[in-house]
Amino acid sequence: MTTPLNERRIANAIRVLAMDAVQQANSGHPGAPMGMADIADVVWREFLAHNPSNPQWANRDRFVLSNGHGSMLHYALLHLTGYDLSIEDIKQFRQLHSRTPGHPEYGYAPGIETTTGPLGQGIANAVGFALAEKTLAAQFNKDDIQVVDHFTYCFLGDGCLMEGISHEVCSLAGTLQLGKLIAYYDDNGISIDGEVEGWFSDDTEQRFKAYGWQVLRVDGHDADAIRQATVEAKAETAKPTLIICKTVIGLGSPNKQGKEDCHGAPLGNDEIALTREALGWTEDAFVIPEDVYGAWDAKAKGSEAESAWNDVFAQYQAKYPTEAKELLRRISGELPADFAEKAAQFIADTNAKAETIATRKASQNTLQAFGPLLSELLGGSADLAGSNLTLWKGAEGVQDNPAGNYVHYGVREFGMTAIANGVALHGGFIPYVATFLMFMEYARNAVRMSALMKQRVIHVYTHDSIGLGEDGPTHQPIEQIASLRGTPNLHTWRPADTVETAVAWLSALQYQNGPTALILSRQNLPFQTRDQAQIEDIAKGGYVLAKEKGELKAIIIATGSEVDLAMQAHAELDGVRVVSMPCAEIFMQQDAAYREAVLPANIRARVAVEAAHVDYWWKFVGLDGKVIGMTTYGESAPAKDLFKHFGITKEAVVEAVNSLI
Amino acid sequence: MTTPLNERRIANAIRVLAMDAVQQANSGHPGAPMGMADIADVVWREFLAHNPSNPQWANRDRFVLSNGHGSMLHYALLHLTGYDLSIEDIKQFRQLHSRTPGHPEYGYAPGIETTTGPLGQGIANAVGFALAEKTLAAQFNKDDIQVVDHFTYCFLGDGCLMEGISHEVCSLAGTLQLGKLIAYYDDNGISIDGEVEGWFSDDTEQRFKAYGWQVLRVDGHDADAIRQATVEAKAETAKPTLIICKTVIGLGSPNKQGKEDCHGAPLGNDEIALTREALGWTEDAFVIPEDVYGAWDAKAKGSEAESAWNDVFAQYQAKYPTEAKELLRRISGELPADFAEKAAQFIADTNAKAETIATRKASQNTLQAFGPLLSELLGGSADLAGSNLTLWKGAEGVQDNPAGNYVHYGVREFGMTAIANGVALHGGFIPYVATFLMFMEYARNAVRMSALMKQRVIHVYTHDSIGLGEDGPTHQPIEQIASLRGTPNLHTWRPADTVETAVAWLSALQYQNGPTALILSRQNLPFQTRDQAQIEDIAKGGYVLAKEKGELKAIIIATGSEVDLAMQAHAELDGVRVVSMPCAEIFMQQDAAYREAVLPANIRARVAVEAAHVDYWWKFVGLDGKVIGMTTYGESAPAKDLFKHFGITKEAVVEAVNSLI
Repeated sequence: MTTPLNERRIANAIRVLAMDAVQQANSGHPGAPMGMADIADVVWREFLAHNPSNPQWANRDRFVLSNGHGSMLHYALLHLTGYDLSIEDIKQFRQLHSRTPGHPEYGYAPGIETTTGPLGQGIANAVGFALAEKTLAAQFNKDDIQVVDHFTYCFLGDGCLMEGISHEVCSLAGTLQLGKLIAYYDDNGISIDGEVEGWFSDDTEQRFKAYGWQVLRVDGHDADAIRQATVEAKAETAKPTLIICKTVIGLGSPNKQGKEDCHGAPLGNDEIALTREALGWTEDAFVIPEDVYGAWDAKAKGSEAESAWNDVFAQYQAKYPTEAKELLRRISGELPADFAEKAAQFIADTNAKAETIATRKASQNTLQAFGPLLSELLGGSADLAGSNLTLWKGAEGVQDNPAGNYVHYGVREFGMTAIANGVALHGGFIPYVATFLMFMEYARNAVRMSALMKQRVIHVYTHDSIGLGEDGPTHQPIEQIASLRGTPNLHTWRPADTVETAVAWLSALQYQNGPTALILSRQNLPFQTRDQAQIEDIAKGGYVLAKEKGELKAIIIATGSEVDLAMQAHAELDGVRVVSMPCAEIFMQQDAAYREAVLPANIRARVAVEAAHVDYWWKFVGLDGKVIGMTTYGESAPAKDLFKHFGITKEAVVEAVNSLI
Repeated sequence: MTTPLNERRIANAIRVLAMDAVQQANSGHPGAPMGMADIADVVWREFLAHNPSNPQWANRDRFVLSNGHGSMLHYALLHLTGYDLSIEDIKQFRQLHSRTPGHPEYGYAPGIETTTGPLGQGIANAVGFALAEKTLAAQFNKDDIQVVDHFTYCFLGDGCLMEGISHEVCSLAGTLQLGKLIAYYDDNGISIDGEVEGWFSDDTEQRFKAYGWQVLRVDGHDADAIRQATVEAKAETAKPTLIICKTVIGLGSPNKQGKEDCHGAPLGNDEIALTREALGWTEDAFVIPEDVYGAWDAKAKGSEAESAWNDVFAQYQAKYPTEAKELLRRISGELPADFAEKAAQFIADTNAKAETIATRKASQNTLQAFGPLLSELLGGSADLAGSNLTLWKGAEGVQDNPAGNYVHYGVREFGMTAIANGVALHGGFIPYVATFLMFMEYARNAVRMSALMKQRVIHVYTHDSIGLGEDGPTHQPIEQIASLRGTPNLHTWRPADTVETAVAWLSALQYQNGPTALILSRQNLPFQTRDQAQIEDIAKGGYVLAKEKGELKAIIIATGSEVDLAMQAHAELDGVRVVSMPCAEIFMQQDAAYREAVLPANIRARVAVEAAHVDYWWKFVGLDGKVIGMTTYGESAPAKDLFKHFGITKEAVVEAVNSLI
């Protein structure tokens, strides 16, 4: 070993791994890892509290790579510091079944805290981590013992800062004084189209000061400056900190550094050879010298850190056994042992009450019942608390009380949803967030990310159709529900009354492997009568709500506000069955016998009715059936006028059924 | 008439119309109109150049109410200044078939320049208006004659400023130096959840200065201050101006002003009576005194303004007849007379070339052919020009040349799309904007708005499926295409090769009543052989690409990259027809005979194949058919491995067909 071990050489291990892995995959992004290597070196070797031997250590610092295309930076860090991610894994970068996909995917490699790639959402997740930490700390820490106490570090790039979501979440992070959030901006002046000055000329320092952040500026290749700034960032506990790091993209590549060329394509073998030479790196591809590995190895330090925390937790457990048990339960994600039983009782009570109310109101009643049982709920709405009905009597804003359980997110649908993803990933909480169903679209990609990452986030969407009335077509969902139903891992519920709403909430809370969307009405919906077996079948997603009189000739399938239209039609028709289908995805997961019992294959006279786009329902009614729903935009008028105008009526259902039998 | 005619009394006409109309409708938002009435009074009576008798006057100033829930402000202004919007129309506020829907809807009332309501998009549209004006002016104005010369005024609220899109578009407006954009921020400190300080504590002045805007502060009820600020705003031509107007929401209502109560609900008859008294307004509901009408009437002034401009245009026409003719054509929205013929020739040439290339490359080739013929094209990409392939040889950035035809939008998908909506609404341009199909989701609600407003915006979406390969599931669309196909008025094309791509572009350009989404591949797609009749049938959205050998027994329906799989299967199967369905929406608009000829109703052995979510296709294959496609998220791997992994192969198509016949 001739080259002395110094800071730059240690950081260069990231640079060579990144350029070599991208070259081997023949695709990927070497520029960001090479540009941020020196920052990563300081943050990961000196500041980040983590234990490579236990990526699940509850009190670890969280690290988010918001510029997720630089995934090789993160994989290199995980490999070098001692996570269970081998050099073979690195060689399999971007290959099928590898643990090192093109972007950091939650659940693939240990130590990846969130899936990033869609720009701006990583910093939003980081805000969620910091919010979760602050809230959990306020809920559980004692004056004498702090069991929740960690930082959240986030790397981000120009792209993240141009995206609107960065405004939403950084503004809110400033207002919420998330002082333990530290973000490093890779200010390299380059985006895919070239030098950013033609399309990105913000004074980012001024912008973030306007949000109430501490802003520091450093040379992103000066380890001492990065170190000093990080110390200052940690010292400022009332404000989040942005460290603007002036960097050179692809640093080390003689011909491509500082240019767009190295952003998203392999450097090429010749340039890699030149880069090795320029860096003074003599080893072959994927070979890291032992002394460099030694400098990076964080296993011993990490185990000590976790062990020290375990001692603290043991003291906490001794002194505050109830809180300790609750904290462990919260972190495990398990619901309270008696919750299922109490929920069943609430559903029975709801059935007994037989109320005709809006399902948004039924949702609030459910929250009022479940909320006191579930300290893990962290609710919120994008400035529509009084419309979404997401507040309950025990809901308290974190703005007023840091140990609260509700966030006034402001008019920030996308930011809210991506923050909720971070909260869910952090652990200790079940977040629910709300807006009008239409404005789900503003948050759409974060909803998808909650599903891709299989996170238990509950998306509450009220004002679900033309039934909202006068606000008109900009507010009336048409194609939105189908879009949610097509989202893998997401359960989309559109309940018909109070009982289905309560069951939908219970299902969402018990669904550990993905998010749920609750689609709720603004207007009152009539209560439907069910026997106990029917109540139990609601959880199967679809069930026979009204049996046919006489021989089965036709089936009406309906959801939400249209179930009552189907029931009205049923009263006039012989041989017709009504199937309520509040969650089609769960219904499709039932066994074939159950599905056949509900929807016998030989009955082709099928009518679906839903005040949403018709196209989703051909799957259930086929080429011989009919769908009553929407194919155009809505209009501004009282709801009753709209249902008539668009032909979503009992008469239309009856006529459609009669035309088929 | 006892009350003297003064500024406040003139403005109060807005207040009473707003509170009375909301009360009559029993729904709506009186707070913003009452709070912004004094600002509106100054802007509309003293500055806005418009002609109520001709809302289409090309050189009018544009006015956008970004806080669209305050629609009664805009309706009151249109009514009072003399547009064809009667007091009867005002009384029909929020009723079916009225011209005064709950939010301002483009195409309903004269003078409504854009549909607003989804927060933040109005200011984005306004940026689009200002961009269109600046670009059109640079393209057509001469040193001696300016025929394009107007301002864009925009009102906005806290909600707009919290939304991420406000960051995207205001940042870009600063960079693009849109000096003729003037925005008035209704800084009333109230949003739906209450006083905003708990969730919105930005220093907005500092924030906008960071974007390169001029920022002024006024008392929003002091007409002189508003006047002076507007003069300063008009004088600053290099920077857009934000005028922060401190206002009291619902001003005039003794018990509700300054509170959330008056934001989104009728004041109630008692409070309305008290407000009348407080305002000194003695007339009955919907009665405006003649002297007040007289003070507002803008018809004479407007006609003079238009007439003066007509004189300028006549000079221009005399001196620059070619440019004048072209400008009139551009404003009319008509394509050049010889365009259809030249496009047909390009399609024939493309067919003769028979190239196997990616459809994104085919799209660029089409742009290269059509671009020189269409000076109205205003292209752009959200920092993916080199990936979307949206640049052509004649494309020039407006950042470099104000008379250019291309915008480097930066990483701002939502902002880009909503700006394009504004550009289309302004007239004189056909905007096309691009990103990866996945990141359509960031822009999703603006895509919907282009469709709701029936604007000719061309949305170019490349990297359309798992076929993009290694970037993995965050980048691989699954459910996105179905969401676009469900959007009323939107045409979604997924072409299979160079010829279908050229036809798709032609269709998009010729579609005057709505937007088009072009779904394009990253990877090469084989050229398909067609006869002339087949080439002509592409424009019908779906057609028989390969006839069955022998008697028809089964049909394979495919789009885009999967058409070639269908053709490979076809080669091995007798009695099987291949239908290429590049645009299902247009196919469904064909007459029944054509649809029956392509998809005979009695053939139920149908297989659809598309590397996207399967659910869309049940509409075409029914309960007896099969769909080969995706039901889960993708993975990170080379494309060829992914198609095999997910079973989207020739073998799977053959097997599915054989299982049905």
